[in-house]
Amino acid sequence: MTSQTISTKTDALYDLYAEWSELMAENPEMSLRTLRALFDEWHQPTVEPEGVTYREDTVGGVPGIWCLPHGADESQVMMFTHGGGFAVGSASSHRKLAGHVAKTLGVVSFVLDYRRAPEHPHPAQVEDGVAVFDALVAAGTEPENITTIGDSAGGNLAIAIPLALKEQGKALPGQVIAFSPWLDMENKGKTLETNNDTDALITPALLEGMIAGVLGEDIDPKTPLANPLYADFTDYPRLYMNAGSVESLVDNAQRLEDIAQSAGVDVTLNVAEGQQHVFPFLAGRSEVVDQELNRIKNWYTSGR
Amino acid sequence: MTSQTISTKTDALYDLYAEWSELMAENPEMSLRTLRALFDEWHQPTVEPEGVTYREDTVGGVPGIWCLPHGADESQVMMFTHGGGFAVGSASSHRKLAGHVAKTLGVVSFVLDYRRAPEHPHPAQVEDGVAVFDALVAAGTEPENITTIGDSAGGNLAIAIPLALKEQGKALPGQVIAFSPWLDMENKGKTLETNNDTDALITPALLEGMIAGVLGEDIDPKTPLANPLYADFTDYPRLYMNAGSVESLVDNAQRLEDIAQSAGVDVTLNVAEGQQHVFPFLAGRSEVVDQELNRIKNWYTSGR
Repeated sequence: MTSQTISTKTDALYDLYAEWSELMAENPEMSLRTLRALFDEWHQPTVEPEGVTYREDTVGGVPGIWCLPHGADESQVMMFTHGGGFAVGSASSHRKLAGHVAKTLGVVSFVLDYRRAPEHPHPAQVEDGVAVFDALVAAGTEPENITTIGDSAGGNLAIAIPLALKEQGKALPGQVIAFSPWLDMENKGKTLETNNDTDALITPALLEGMIAGVLGEDIDPKTPLANPLYADFTDYPRLYMNAGSVESLVDNAQRLEDIAQSAGVDVTLNVAEGQQHVFPFLAGRSEVVDQELNRIKNWYTSGR
Repeated sequence: MTSQTISTKTDALYDLYAEWSELMAENPEMSLRTLRALFDEWHQPTVEPEGVTYREDTVGGVPGIWCLPHGADESQVMMFTHGGGFAVGSASSHRKLAGHVAKTLGVVSFVLDYRRAPEHPHPAQVEDGVAVFDALVAAGTEPENITTIGDSAGGNLAIAIPLALKEQGKALPGQVIAFSPWLDMENKGKTLETNNDTDALITPALLEGMIAGVLGEDIDPKTPLANPLYADFTDYPRLYMNAGSVESLVDNAQRLEDIAQSAGVDVTLNVAEGQQHVFPFLAGRSEVVDQELNRIKNWYTSGR
């Protein structure tokens, strides 16, 4: 048994997911309000990144938190869209994760508190991302110095925001990064079944509820801006993705890798052996994540 | 109607307390695990303090988070014990609040993740505080440069830790600060009744459960280190307290003010008109809290 295999059973992220799953199973009628409280614990496995300060702000009408690593290049901006099925999670739950990535890359990051579903169905989340991008550019940031980045449903948004900008004929961000992106709104990936026993959090039923919340009854689950597996990736920015090998959503990233490569995109995917959904949440307490952040830094630097 | 009266009905802290109260009323069997998720939202009304970095650490065997304001005097240390009935709340839920206070005073703060009840009944929390104090002194911090500070049950601890040090014949911290301290483990304060309609969070039943958790069946609710209203305050450090006029626990601070004054302690109490339990949680979005933090700074500086 390798240490990475052990880590899937003993790490702080696995434990938190297992606790959430148990609480959700015990309370099938758990309110969205309580679910939001639970998922705001997502920051817990992440160690506070040192040397980073924070500033609340509103950019393009969207509230959020700036992560400002000491000595970072403020002309390079990561727009971080948090995960949580478009319905839960927040800038607070992802502040530390975004802080670690920003610090590693030597850039600043704005973590968006975009409008959440079901109060605000698709495309409100994508629109908020476009509004932030437009505001950053209007304030003088070069588009190629902007990176859209996110995890899970926020990885979907990080991928969809440049697609929306492309539709609108605007300049695109220079880079896109997605951790364990959740893309398939038809809820039919094969690893939903094959990794069902090893994924500590994700179930088809959980995703089904999230899809109903963000798409409602009227929006086609094949809509490219909601489901980028149906999008045209011609002239898309360079793309970095990762995922855990044992998670139920790993094939979302794998399918997108094929699609983007076929469209000529410079795409990189790292599937980390034995890791759970959004394993970079273990930043500060995992060698696997230390290595992953360095890999992302090399990728980021080499393309600039 | 004054603006302060309005604030009790419309501020972000009131709203959060009202939501929690509704959720607890809807789910009388809510698990402690879920209650901890809920109370970890306590940071939400507090704006991120700018110019503060954070570092996780273990001091005297107790884990916690250092709040390090830019330019702070690291020889002056606040030991921050968070509130939450000894059972809920965490260093994370109080990081931003401790950061605001530390920044205002120009000092650093260690927010303790002390052992919580009911897994760890009294006096585990006080012992953890003493262990941190001892470790800080052993590492070279002058006792008079240490301030114990906390809110609600953590205000109780901030007051009890110097009492325990006094029993042990040790040097005492130079200052003690308590926001809305919860002291009365007999659960019999008169403002529990008179302010029951205006306090958005605290009920006698909620406190009853917290008391059972921390004292169990064997510990006398008049134990001075659990209930400082029964303690000897002779030779106690200078003490600053505040509380909201409409909160159910305001008379805890008022009763302690009388007791401490009778023992010759230099004690200051500010009762803020119309404010809720631990109103400094509104730091960054309330003029009342701006004024209160300046008042504490003047008190802190004038005594040094």
